This record gives sequence, structure tokens and C-alpha cells, in this order.
Amino acid sequence: MSELQPIQTPSSDRMREASRVLADAAASGGTLDLSRGKPAAAQLDLANDILTDPVWARTGGADCRTYGDPHGIPEMLAFWEEVTGIPRGRIRTGGNSSLRMMYDAMARAVMFGMPDSPCPWYEVHDRKFLCPAPGYDRHFRITETMGFTLIPIRMTDEGPDMDEVAGWVSDPTVKGIWCVPKYHNPTGAVYSRETIRRLATMDTAAPDFTVFFDNAYAVHGFCGAGEPVPDILRMADEAGHPNRVLYFASTSKITFPGGGVAMFAAGEQNLAYADRYLSAQSIGPDRLNQLRTVRHIERCGGIRPLMARHAAIIRPKFDRLFATLHRNLDGTGYARWTEPEGGYFSSLDTLPGKARRVWELCRSAGVILTPPGATFPYGKDPADTNLRLAPTCATAEEVEAAARILCAAILVASGET
Amino acid sequence: MSELQPIQTPSSDRMREASRVLADAAASGGTLDLSRGKPAAAQLDLANDILTDPVWARTGGADCRTYGDPHGIPEMLAFWEEVTGIPRGRIRTGGNSSLRMMYDAMARAVMFGMPDSPCPWYEVHDRKFLCPAPGYDRHFRITETMGFTLIPIRMTDEGPDMDEVAGWVSDPTVKGIWCVPKYHNPTGAVYSRETIRRLATMDTAAPDFTVFFDNAYAVHGFCGAGEPVPDILRMADEAGHPNRVLYFASTSKITFPGGGVAMFAAGEQNLAYADRYLSAQSIGPDRLNQLRTVRHIERCGGIRPLMARHAAIIRPKFDRLFATLHRNLDGTGYARWTEPEGGYFSSLDTLPGKARRVWELCRSAGVILTPPGATFPYGKDPADTNLRLAPTCATAEEVEAAARILCAAILVASGET
Repeated sequence: MSELQPIQTPSSDRMREASRVLADAAASGGTLDLSRGKPAAAQLDLANDILTDPVWARTGGADCRTYGDPHGIPEMLAFWEEVTGIPRGRIRTGGNSSLRMMYDAMARAVMFGMPDSPCPWYEVHDRKFLCPAPGYDRHFRITETMGFTLIPIRMTDEGPDMDEVAGWVSDPTVKGIWCVPKYHNPTGAVYSRETIRRLATMDTAAPDFTVFFDNAYAVHGFCGAGEPVPDILRMADEAGHPNRVLYFASTSKITFPGGGVAMFAAGEQNLAYADRYLSAQSIGPDRLNQLRTVRHIERCGGIRPLMARHAAIIRPKFDRLFATLHRNLDGTGYARWTEPEGGYFSSLDTLPGKARRVWELCRSAGVILTPPGATFPYGKDPADTNLRLAPTCATAEEVEAAARILCAAILVASGET
Repeated sequence: MSELQPIQTPSSDRMREASRVLADAAASGGTLDLSRGKPAAAQLDLANDILTDPVWARTGGADCRTYGDPHGIPEMLAFWEEVTGIPRGRIRTGGNSSLRMMYDAMARAVMFGMPDSPCPWYEVHDRKFLCPAPGYDRHFRITETMGFTLIPIRMTDEGPDMDEVAGWVSDPTVKGIWCVPKYHNPTGAVYSRETIRRLATMDTAAPDFTVFFDNAYAVHGFCGAGEPVPDILRMADEAGHPNRVLYFASTSKITFPGGGVAMFAAGEQNLAYADRYLSAQSIGPDRLNQLRTVRHIERCGGIRPLMARHAAIIRPKFDRLFATLHRNLDGTGYARWTEPEGGYFSSLDTLPGKARRVWELCRSAGVILTPPGATFPYGKDPADTNLRLAPTCATAEEVEAAARILCAAILVASGET
């Protein structure tokens, strides 16, 4: 995307009105939060029957109150097969956190290497990781913590800029890339089939280049379910890169955040390799929670009807957000934003150098946004333009009120010299 | 302990009877399992009210269905403070697996070092870890997986042989020791205050020597609650080793194995160090499960009455085991065994070179024991004498039947030349 440019300076009346909106909001002392990608209470209520399901025996009668099923209960593996299209034998389930599974997988690669590694990643001097940006700060932080140099990759509407990626992967110290293929955090972009094909099939100098493929929003469309994500594991396998992809997902935004069930999947050899370490780590996952989770989804008639109920709650909030942005900013050239069809975020760009100022003006007026820079490696947005908007947790009315204040902040900040 | 020696060869009648017991058991085709340290179904039933507790708001009203409380909910931290005596500010809670927290802590030390480390443990050539043996195979396996040389340390009735330990810690490549201070797995030994004092205060060549202190059976006495474990964190702190100890526990054998809540604790600096990495790993623990767990324990009138109910189920099984061993083996000098007052195991020694044969004879007769060697580093018991007995999961009648077969196997194996 090219840089934004002012199209037309708003009238002085409009600018005075914007200042007044900010001043009034500050005076009211209220707080509106668009900072966290969390489900609203109404969404959590959809899953409350999980709390009182007395079940403890899974299919076949095995007692899930005790140890067993180190890969997860069969019902949970079947669920993930249905959602991802990956055969259940290639899937491992964990606790409540897919982020932890990603950290674990990265730690394994650092300490022990991957199946095709010449050496553990620990020993790779100046190791690097590709970070499509704007992106998810917690992804970036895992690789930063483990001593990688983070390389920002420009995000497009079709995923990471694959020409940039292709340029970097000729360097053998570039060990992998973070990906959110569907409803990318925060732009909401859906990777095109061509992007996924290139990720799966491209030549890389590192024989152990690994795609950390976090399909966090696999079924989280709010304008219909969206297309299923192409089978990157099979594509990579057919291209002669059977160990290229580690695939992650969780039910955090299907049932309860923090009380969900995470999964990861990989090619056959990669999985056997991971199993050696997984079996040293834990006797097994919380099977009771897996059982409760799959039974809840069954009671909802399956994953599609359940996610349609989530969509019905989420969509009006995004609609209200976008309508308010259009009403207040169209024609100014002061901002542009993504309007995704799923996920939990919209990504907004201000004029260069204005994002932090907008964030500060919002904060003074009681509107909490994700800190500027958070969506970039090392928390630094070089052009200071990007803000992440998370409208799901607030009510539609709160979203509109917050968006009005945000628009006023953008007008005021953009008018400042 | 000195080596066992035969005292008196049993009569040929008695030996024939033993052979007959084994043959009959084999012919019956039944299976009796003394191999796994798991609660029995009757113990699991004690916690079934967890499954139908509809609660999701913790004290103060915070919604535990969503993200929050990265260290754990206040109620859970208070519970662990009560159980361990460690101030709640020094405690972090996790998911269902304390083993995973130990693996994580070891992985942190390997990748990043500990606060007092000259370098990450990854870079310590021929790094070593002390493994009191017989001990817990899953502890040993974590350190084996991470490239440590495992050093067996003789277990005494008062904990690891501290003179042996003192000999080893003058080597700076010796980075730590595995400890189960109360009802050690498998001997059931309770560490003496002097043992714990020496672990906390001894000089070590490695400035980052770390005691992995797994208080897995803190409240698991079945002949009364037993003495609380001395406060090793404070002892170490007062001796000028504030970062020496990482402390672990879980509710796996208080509520549901696999569905419990794990904790770890450490000195202030050590904890701040760990927090940096913990916060990169996960948004937070499963708070709903924490809330369910503490409310269940409250409904039971607290941890002591609850554990007394567990003890009432467990103790008769151990009593039956020991009575059967005495009745069949006293006076032979063919075996000795520990008779602990808590925990999940007894440790039995055969004559040298007989443990594997006893295990095989048992297996042929349908009695499943933990594989011989499992209690030693690398799965190798150099004298081939040790067997771990786990009587909790079977019924008292099954324990007696299995013990009769075990005794017969010991008589037969010991009579063989």
C-alpha cells in the first residue's frame, strides 16, 4: 500500500467539532476499551452449559478424570480433523493455550533443532525469523525472547509480500515465518491460495525453514464461514518439504478464552520428532476439558451453527465501527482501514507519524487502544501509522462511541503540524 | 542399605506352593496392575462435584471464562500458600501438569540460564544432574532429553545420601538435583530436616546449582498428615542462596489426575526472571478449572478433611500389601521393602540380579509391575534389585492377590541359580 495523503483539509467547523468531542469525552471520565481481542460476555454465555456437564467417560467408557490419551481424546482429535481437514493421526492436542504450543515448538527447535536441521537453532549465529507486519505481538515476542532477529515483512491483502519473503529465504540463517492465514491479526487479510502455495513450495536456503501456521480464526468468519484454508501440509509434502509446516489452532474463541483446547499438527516425520519431546513434557492433556468442549459443540449442532451464533453477535459491532469511520473520515485521506469478514480485528493506518498521537488523544478521552507499535517487531512501527482496533468485547453502542472519539482524534492529530 | 542376603532357604513344600501360585495365576488369564501411581475410581468420585459447579465469577466478580490473572486466580494462590507455607506472591500456577512446569523451567535454564548462571546451560559441556535413585523416571527423562549426564545418588531413609551429593557438587558442571521431599517416589522416604538444610545451604561449585524440589505429595499422608516440609526456600535464602530452589506441586492427586492445577514457586529474583519467559509463553492459565478446584476443596471443609478421605481409601491397600509381603517373605531374606506413611508407592528390593526375573514371572502370571530399571537413570538398575509397587489404583482384594503372586515370583526367582 502506498502512503496515505491528505485529500482535503476538513472545514474549521469540523475540526472544532472534533476537538469538542475529545474534550467532552475527557470530561465525562468514561472509559471505552477497543484494545483486546476478546469475546464479549454474550459470546461466553453461549458456552455456559460446559460448566455443568457431569460427563467424565468418553466414547468407549474410558475415565477422563485420570491420566490417559496423551495425544488427546479421540472426540477432540475428530473435531480438529473436521475443522482443519488434517487427518486426526497428524494432530496433537494440548492445554488451554496454542501460544504455549508455539513457544514449546520454538523451544524444541532452539534446543534440539528440527528434523532437517544441520544443528539446533541455538547454535545458529544471528538467527532470523520473518514477521509479517502489522502482525501479532505475542508471536513476535516468542522469537524475540529466543534470540532471533525479527525481520518485518510487508502485509498485503493476500498475505505476506511473498516477493519480500523470497528475497529473505535465500539466507540460511532465516529459519521461519509467522503466519495467520485466515483473518490475519490485525488486518483480517485472508491468505490467497497462491501465497500459501508459495509458502509451501518455495526453495529456502535453510533446509529446516519452518512455517509457524497459526490458524487461530479457522472458523471465525462473521460474514459467512469463508473459504477453508488450503491444505498447506499436503502442498508442502507434495513439493518435497514434508517438514516445513507446524500448524496450530485452538478453541479459545469458540468456547472460553483461557479455558479452551489447543492443537498442533505437522507432517509425519515432524510429528514423530515432536512426540519424543512431548512425551517427556507431560503425562497428558486435561481430558475432562476436552470432553466438555466437544460435547458442548455437539449440543450446538456442530461447529458451523455455533460460529454463526458468534458471528451474529460480532458482526454488528464491526458494521458499526466501519460505518462510523466512513461517516467521519471519508474524503479526508487521513486514515484507511481494513474491513475483514472474520476474526477479531481491523487494522487502521493514520498519516505517517500520527499513530502515537492519535493513541494519546484517545487515551486522554478515555478510549483504550492497543499501544501503537505493538503490531510490529520489537514494538516499533517505523512509520508510526498503524493502530489495531478490537471491537468484539464492547457493546455495539460502545464501539460506535469509541469510534466517534477515535475519528475525532484522527482529525485533530492530522490537522496538527 | 547393605545388599540383601538369603537367610534361610524356604522348604521345598513352600517353593512348590509358590510355583503352583504362579501357574494357577497364569492359567486364570486374569490381570492385576500395580504399575501406575494413580488414584482409584473411589478417590476420583470424591471430586465429582467439580464437574457440575456452574461458577465462573471469582471473588470480586472477575469473569474466569475469559483471559486474565496470568499468575493464577487469587483463591488458587491462597490455596497453595496454605499447602506449602510459601507466600502467595512467590507462587505461579499453571495448567494441569507440574511435570510440564519442570520441563519448562529446565528448558529456560538450558536456553537462557538461571539468574546466577555464567552462561546458558546449553553451553555447559558435559552438564550433569543428580538423580536420587530409586527415583521418578519422568524427572530423569526431562534431564536426559535435555542432554544432561544423569548421576545416580543413593537414596536413604532420610533423603538422598548428602555425603555423595556433597562430593558431586564440587564439580561446576553439576547443575542441580531432583528431589521429592515427602513420600519420595518410589521409596516413600521423607527427607529429614538435616537433608533439606544441607540442600539449601551447601556450597556448590556451580553458582547456579538448582534444587528441583517436587513436593508432589505435600498433603498425601495416609497415616496422618505427616510433618510439613521444612521451608527450603527460606533456608536457602538465609544461607545466601536465594536462587537455589525451584519448588513444584500440583492437585493431580487431590482432585483429578490430568485435570488438576500445577504450581511452581521460587525466590524473588528467580521468580522475576521466570516471569519474563512465562509471560511470553501464555496469556494465562485455565482460570475456570482453578475456580472449580478451590471451590471443591472448600466444600470438602478444606484440604485436611479431603486428604483424610483419600487416606481412608488408600491406607487399607498399603496395609494389605505389607501384610501379604510379611506373611510370605519374612525370614527368607529374599526381599525388603519400604513401608511409607504416605504417597503412592512402596519400593521393593530383591536379591541382586533378580528384579527383572521377578517382573517377568509376575507378567507371565498376569501381574503388571513398573518395568525393572524404570526407577534408575537411563532405565538401568545396575544391581537389578529394585521394583516399584503402586497399590492405589487396584482394590484391596486385588492388591492382596497381586502381592501373593509377587511373593511367589520372588520365592521362585530367588531359588533359581
